[in-house]
Amino acid sequence: MDKQLIPDIIISRLPIYLRALRHMKAEGKLTTSSQELGAAVGISAAQIRKDLSQFGEFGKQGTGYDIAFLIDQLREILHVERVWDVAVVGMGDMGHALTRYQGFSDRGFRVEMVFDNDPTKIGGQVGNYSVRDVKEIVTAIRNSGIRLAMLCVPAVAAQEVTNLLVEAGVKAILNYAPISLSVPAGVRVQYLDPSIGLQRMAYYLD
Amino acid sequence: MDKQLIPDIIISRLPIYLRALRHMKAEGKLTTSSQELGAAVGISAAQIRKDLSQFGEFGKQGTGYDIAFLIDQLREILHVERVWDVAVVGMGDMGHALTRYQGFSDRGFRVEMVFDNDPTKIGGQVGNYSVRDVKEIVTAIRNSGIRLAMLCVPAVAAQEVTNLLVEAGVKAILNYAPISLSVPAGVRVQYLDPSIGLQRMAYYLD
Repeated sequence: MDKQLIPDIIISRLPIYLRALRHMKAEGKLTTSSQELGAAVGISAAQIRKDLSQFGEFGKQGTGYDIAFLIDQLREILHVERVWDVAVVGMGDMGHALTRYQGFSDRGFRVEMVFDNDPTKIGGQVGNYSVRDVKEIVTAIRNSGIRLAMLCVPAVAAQEVTNLLVEAGVKAILNYAPISLSVPAGVRVQYLDPSIGLQRMAYYLD
Repeated sequence: MDKQLIPDIIISRLPIYLRALRHMKAEGKLTTSSQELGAAVGISAAQIRKDLSQFGEFGKQGTGYDIAFLIDQLREILHVERVWDVAVVGMGDMGHALTRYQGFSDRGFRVEMVFDNDPTKIGGQVGNYSVRDVKEIVTAIRNSGIRLAMLCVPAVAAQEVTNLLVEAGVKAILNYAPISLSVPAGVRVQYLDPSIGLQRMAYYLD
């Protein structure tokens, strides 16, 4: 199937379904319905059925979805049935928090190396990782084949580091720096700037 | 104008335009075009013009947008021409990072109080804040009139804390916990679970 044919807005909902299904499974449930899943994630049952139908026929009329099966299918669709190594750049508070974050390991990701440009941080420990010099970033990432990075550097350094990540072969960047990044075609950026998230909600407050 | 008439996907792009415009202004620029703004944020000029046209006529044929004026207009539309107090709940690594985050103050937000349920953390300092007991959360938030919260507690505690926040009058929650939350109509949740962001991009890797 051609990936370009499926709107990114649908892709963005699949991890949310996956998370809710795993939660159901952890609670011992075996099957669910689009209604129940919808109630858990705040998305309509019709939308869920429509989203999933883009990828195949996963439910049965009358019995609904087999949770374990649908989890496996979604993990495969999202390519998180494997574990992706991730680099974290910038060992400020946010980089620390992400490096030590416990929620990646069972969801398809593992922090593999961490970088900073501060001589007082390079060589130090963050969690189980020794902080590497950002000067080594292109060689280190290229040699390891890492394709994913989390960017937690100050805005002023973000584009420069992004250029290095792209040069090293990184294809997807989770950006915590409060700035839009220029990347070539074929490289994706997700923005997790917390002020953006708050601003988006403030619109609805009065 | 009726807020329900403007799709949330448009609202979600306004903070991105605002951030890029502020960046341009900081660089000393006075005017811009939808083409230039689009190149900065990776969104088409046509989309930007269409989005902004929902709220009025901000540009002039031939001269483009006055950056300072458009910033003021977007801040007003998003209700961030004022400063919103925010509560942070959960003083783990992520809560620490958000409490100490420097990027809120000039973008419409200020951390006002922070909470945890761990007796070894309550009363301690995080940044400039004394950590308060989550048992006080309903009274403290209600008395202060806070409407926004950032939730950084473990998944298992997230719904329970959410119920307290809703009871206290919070209308918008930035959720870092890896779980979908049930909230009543009129309360908004933005999900910033980092695994979701990575999974969404892993789809495009092969």
